[in-house]
Amino acid sequence: MNRLNLDESLRDRALRVIPGGMWGHQAVSRLPAGYPQYFSRGEGARCWDANGRSYIDYMCAWGPMILGYNDPDVEAAAAAQRALGDGLNGPTPKLVELAELFVATVPHADWVLFAKNGTDATTACVTIARAGTGRRKVLVARGAYHGAIPWCTPSVAGVTEEDRAHLVFYEFNDAASLEAAADSVKGDLAAIIVSAFRHDLGKPHEMPSEVFARTARRVADAADAALIVDDVRAGFRLDLGGSWELLGIRADLSAWSKAIANGRALAAVAGNDRFREAATKAYVTGSFWTAGVAMAASIATINKLRDTDGIGRMVAAGQRLRDGLQAQAVKYGLPLRQSGPVQMPVFLFDGDENRTIGNRFSLEALQRGVYFHPTHTMFLSAAHTIADIEETLQVTDEAMRVTADAV
Amino acid sequence: MNRLNLDESLRDRALRVIPGGMWGHQAVSRLPAGYPQYFSRGEGARCWDANGRSYIDYMCAWGPMILGYNDPDVEAAAAAQRALGDGLNGPTPKLVELAELFVATVPHADWVLFAKNGTDATTACVTIARAGTGRRKVLVARGAYHGAIPWCTPSVAGVTEEDRAHLVFYEFNDAASLEAAADSVKGDLAAIIVSAFRHDLGKPHEMPSEVFARTARRVADAADAALIVDDVRAGFRLDLGGSWELLGIRADLSAWSKAIANGRALAAVAGNDRFREAATKAYVTGSFWTAGVAMAASIATINKLRDTDGIGRMVAAGQRLRDGLQAQAVKYGLPLRQSGPVQMPVFLFDGDENRTIGNRFSLEALQRGVYFHPTHTMFLSAAHTIADIEETLQVTDEAMRVTADAV
Repeated sequence: MNRLNLDESLRDRALRVIPGGMWGHQAVSRLPAGYPQYFSRGEGARCWDANGRSYIDYMCAWGPMILGYNDPDVEAAAAAQRALGDGLNGPTPKLVELAELFVATVPHADWVLFAKNGTDATTACVTIARAGTGRRKVLVARGAYHGAIPWCTPSVAGVTEEDRAHLVFYEFNDAASLEAAADSVKGDLAAIIVSAFRHDLGKPHEMPSEVFARTARRVADAADAALIVDDVRAGFRLDLGGSWELLGIRADLSAWSKAIANGRALAAVAGNDRFREAATKAYVTGSFWTAGVAMAASIATINKLRDTDGIGRMVAAGQRLRDGLQAQAVKYGLPLRQSGPVQMPVFLFDGDENRTIGNRFSLEALQRGVYFHPTHTMFLSAAHTIADIEETLQVTDEAMRVTADAV
Repeated sequence: MNRLNLDESLRDRALRVIPGGMWGHQAVSRLPAGYPQYFSRGEGARCWDANGRSYIDYMCAWGPMILGYNDPDVEAAAAAQRALGDGLNGPTPKLVELAELFVATVPHADWVLFAKNGTDATTACVTIARAGTGRRKVLVARGAYHGAIPWCTPSVAGVTEEDRAHLVFYEFNDAASLEAAADSVKGDLAAIIVSAFRHDLGKPHEMPSEVFARTARRVADAADAALIVDDVRAGFRLDLGGSWELLGIRADLSAWSKAIANGRALAAVAGNDRFREAATKAYVTGSFWTAGVAMAASIATINKLRDTDGIGRMVAAGQRLRDGLQAQAVKYGLPLRQSGPVQMPVFLFDGDENRTIGNRFSLEALQRGVYFHPTHTMFLSAAHTIADIEETLQVTDEAMRVTADAV
């Protein structure tokens, strides 16, 4: 087989045995034509597609990679546990070690339990909040993504009305809408769920305002309801203690996944003592939730992020990228709107409703060895060096020039 | 620290940072006092608890281990993929290879998609059935376990009425009750979900009767609804093609997890062409669902089970164990009731309502190096040799004698 056509050949084969050729968020049909579907390798800040082309990677496996692909310290810790055992008839000692480290790292947490998917964690938070309050209603920001089962999935196919019967919607960063939503369900409020920051697909990202965050905490307290922070996407990239630590606001329950084990499947629900007993009553479990290898990887990930100032290095690299792109956008007259934390950016263009500019810019970068996503939150890692950023900026200078000429 | 007290010490530490000390199905509080909570190692058909005691293991990590812990062929395949990449920006070529192998192995399947938990798979089946039929009602056997999120979890803590608004219950193996349930929701039937066999906790297990299985298929066909076989627990232990292949009845959708990657976190939804388009519409996804290592492990697991007659060997070992235990029970006058397939047995005792006999027998076996569960489905693996069974039977002879003397 011609190696250059491997991606295409895999897509043809997949069409026969996978619905639509690919399901879910990684389906390349959601991206402009020209993006590869299949990937063969990752190392540090770089990934290779199935056709052998390499990229400086700004998706990081859609978030899970935070220390670099194949990080030697994480891999060594995982391999050591693997030689002993992974899933067994009960948890390994790594469960206790990780739970202690998690609770020591996340200030709002008095306890933690582990799962596999971000959706497991957000769903468990909602269930525990209902078990602990004996109430039903959950306030959810309109357009927020909290997972992909019927109560939260963005598609309505296969979803019944009852799956969302107790959700009440508010606008992120709009304190008045949050208060109004809470007032509308007086006496039945179980929880307010908020994303770490507003990171809706295809829209400029927004950090929570101080007044919004304080209102969320106050409204939850007034109703004796749970404040749930969904840190699945952002966890460990903004603050090791949880993204709302930056605001000085502490959750009752928080949901984690993606980056917490540098790519291995792991999720976590952290909670305070108010919800400890409720967490013993809600029956949440899964066949692989206590497996030791992902926990060993998570311990190594947390320790390395802390000991090497991983977040500080991501911020420095992200800021250099943001500044460089901004200067290039001015130079070429492109209406670039960068938003989100610099280590979790999204690049949009003003007035670019049909994505002509954004798609073209992303494709031009892709063809020159830089993997951006045109509409989704992107991710930097601690493996992205300033040299990687400089190399990226050489690519983007050319990509912007070509884009500006073409559109 | 005294190694002999490591289990106890870990439990004390866990009480501070994990709700109730442990959550979910592996919480030792669900077992008689004397069972270890923590495990340190697995190799072949044996596991070691955190205190260093070894057991011939009849739980197999609650099912996932099917070829033996640390199986060299599975581990080699996984390590080879690990060196390249696991989770990346899209799937690896292993996705296509595994999907093709799965579809070639499971006769009812025209397509497959992958997830992480059994609950992911059962939930996706229900969602796809609703998306494909445009209807809402799902017939579920009373007492069956299909996962641990609100629509199906055995606990009602944190569950709202609406979470189960469209479930209608029938009795497993009772064709008339299934027909009555279907009649009660005429025009709104989306799916019938059945476990591979009846394996309710603490109850004798039952294979589906032919008339029940045929009725399920006929009722689904008459309503143009989906027949969903939940093969999460039994998948690859009864028949590589799916457990209902033994009955000659084919599902529209089937849910798989546990053993399909010999312990690595993986689940699958398989379906026929009737539900292919529906599967493209229901948005189901997760951060780790396309990771390559578990898929490489699954390919190696399927190939080895097929090429080494893994199921045949499990059946031979399980039959030898069943026959030996039966003879011992007669010898010692214990009312042992073995049920379930021999490779997925449950050992109960007639008239033992408060589990005095069952708990004592299990504990006596445990103390002599054989890990049984007193009430749950157990699991043999292809790593259990006839020599392991003979060693087990020496232990159980003593355990039955002591139990018969004591109760």
